[in-house]
Amino acid sequence: MSIVKRFSSNPLISPANVKPSSPEFEVLCSFNPGATLYNGKPLLLVRVAERPIPEKGYVSTGILDEKSGEVKVFRVRLDDPYLKASDPRLFEYRGETFVTSISHIRAATSKDGIHFTISDKPTLAPQGAYETYGIEDPRITKFDDTYYVSYSAISAKGVATSLSRTKDFVDFERLGVMFAPDNKDIAIFPEKIGGRYYAFHRPSLKHLGMPSLWLASSENLLDWGHHQFLIGPRSGMWDCERVGCGAAPIKTSEGWLELYHASDKNTRYCTGAILLDLNEPWKVIARSETPFLFPEAPYELHGFMPNIIFHSGLIDKGDGTLDLFYGGADEFTCAANVSIKEILATLK
Amino acid sequence: MSIVKRFSSNPLISPANVKPSSPEFEVLCSFNPGATLYNGKPLLLVRVAERPIPEKGYVSTGILDEKSGEVKVFRVRLDDPYLKASDPRLFEYRGETFVTSISHIRAATSKDGIHFTISDKPTLAPQGAYETYGIEDPRITKFDDTYYVSYSAISAKGVATSLSRTKDFVDFERLGVMFAPDNKDIAIFPEKIGGRYYAFHRPSLKHLGMPSLWLASSENLLDWGHHQFLIGPRSGMWDCERVGCGAAPIKTSEGWLELYHASDKNTRYCTGAILLDLNEPWKVIARSETPFLFPEAPYELHGFMPNIIFHSGLIDKGDGTLDLFYGGADEFTCAANVSIKEILATLK
Repeated sequence: MSIVKRFSSNPLISPANVKPSSPEFEVLCSFNPGATLYNGKPLLLVRVAERPIPEKGYVSTGILDEKSGEVKVFRVRLDDPYLKASDPRLFEYRGETFVTSISHIRAATSKDGIHFTISDKPTLAPQGAYETYGIEDPRITKFDDTYYVSYSAISAKGVATSLSRTKDFVDFERLGVMFAPDNKDIAIFPEKIGGRYYAFHRPSLKHLGMPSLWLASSENLLDWGHHQFLIGPRSGMWDCERVGCGAAPIKTSEGWLELYHASDKNTRYCTGAILLDLNEPWKVIARSETPFLFPEAPYELHGFMPNIIFHSGLIDKGDGTLDLFYGGADEFTCAANVSIKEILATLK
Repeated sequence: MSIVKRFSSNPLISPANVKPSSPEFEVLCSFNPGATLYNGKPLLLVRVAERPIPEKGYVSTGILDEKSGEVKVFRVRLDDPYLKASDPRLFEYRGETFVTSISHIRAATSKDGIHFTISDKPTLAPQGAYETYGIEDPRITKFDDTYYVSYSAISAKGVATSLSRTKDFVDFERLGVMFAPDNKDIAIFPEKIGGRYYAFHRPSLKHLGMPSLWLASSENLLDWGHHQFLIGPRSGMWDCERVGCGAAPIKTSEGWLELYHASDKNTRYCTGAILLDLNEPWKVIARSETPFLFPEAPYELHGFMPNIIFHSGLIDKGDGTLDLFYGGADEFTCAANVSIKEILATLK
């Protein structure tokens, strides 16, 4: 029996119900949300992926024009000899690689915690040299009255990881690139341990090794060091291809509980758990043998990329349960509730 | 006319003259040195690459055994069905990638600054989980009486970058992983700018972008942030494939002078220069149109990897000239002298 209870309101947000950021674009996906409580109510930061409305005979994408700050349509004729287009997510033109969609981040709010309304405008839009191909997969961690939002920043310079902070989800202060590229999936622990901040990160490796979960620490949230390998893929298991963090971890009496995402050789993405030592979070106490959340519902099995659950947001309900927010099939924003005790029981 | 004067004693160190670290190994290459003055005399930290003495019918490498601290021979029969070996530098066994050689770091000293004698034992040997496949390409920066050595740390976890420090080149204190993998070619600026330390780094990108030179800064040399893209490859030029730093930059009245390495589509590695603003080192003032140091001598044209000059060490002679130390053909340690004024003149 599954220990998770999916929201009956799933999918919470579908791309069909999201207004494009300009009339030239259409929304492909609204997914992979960060989550927090804001003024006592749930607030999601949803990744919205858009592409120019297709035009016959062309491949196209949106690219941020750094100077004007506007996302502009970039079109190439399909018969252009300098075009190489085989992967639906990428194309190459004159030796440069482009992504066929561009993402921004949009807030979604809820009065009842069950039904969500997404803003009809970008909340955090790409800006500057490291975000020309978009910003993706935000996570949120609150310190005092300030919300820190970490996300992937995509450009021709690589897949970087950036940090912004806000008090009101209207004005954001950009704090620069956190980790050297390529990297993604950053989640900052909600409190200091031994006087230092901690964060998960997920380097993308070119030469040796597999996509794995790493830990780093910091004195000031801006400069990071003491990088340590935490867990990697396990051969023959549900997490044999790649692992990365979900949302920021939850503090429990038994340790830091992190609900992480992983995929197998069929690009099936599921959610499992690790338990880390409270004082020495680089020590892994336990790890899921099987995922507790895996694609079953139609909005997880079918969509932009089928068979994917990508958990990235979490709200502690304060009643021993967690609301997990996740991307379904790389297209929808979804949620499920799970008891902390029941997750911990799977780790015995 | 070339502005560089190669040492008549080149190659300074050849692998044939380097004693293996154990009788089971042979030295393939002694190259890519870091350089500094120690007690007023030049000291190089040379990368020594070794492999097990070949045995017919086997592919083999050395791997650090983390617990014993010893480098042990790992052999696989060529007819083993789980072996994939096509690249002479790598092989794959049971899904894991191995490097066919393992490097450590060895000091070389000189009384006359022209002839060098290399230690017959490792000075800094691989240690711990991030160095099981070896340590490579050190750079040295001195602060007060302490020498900081940054180098690539290779393991099944990826290509990481590590920092150690020493006062005597005998005892080293390990300071951990500096940047998230994959990364390499780290050189720390010799003084603080605006209260912060600065370092070059060279991320290896998996998805988008090309191997480029980045800048990061730090308050304490351990935690790094404010990552900024500095320069990338230039299409159709001598540096069109990859760029990375050489040694730490030299402070001149016109700016920070960095002698960087770059390669073209034929994997020809040369050395050129960039000039960075003294107070805002993320601002590039000038860049070489052509390299001033490129493979010409036999020990640069022929060797383990032909047609390579990889500059990584530098000693300021104090007379307006620099001794550049570099790897020739990925096999030899070499040096050349160049006038700062003449390099700056190429940047007008």
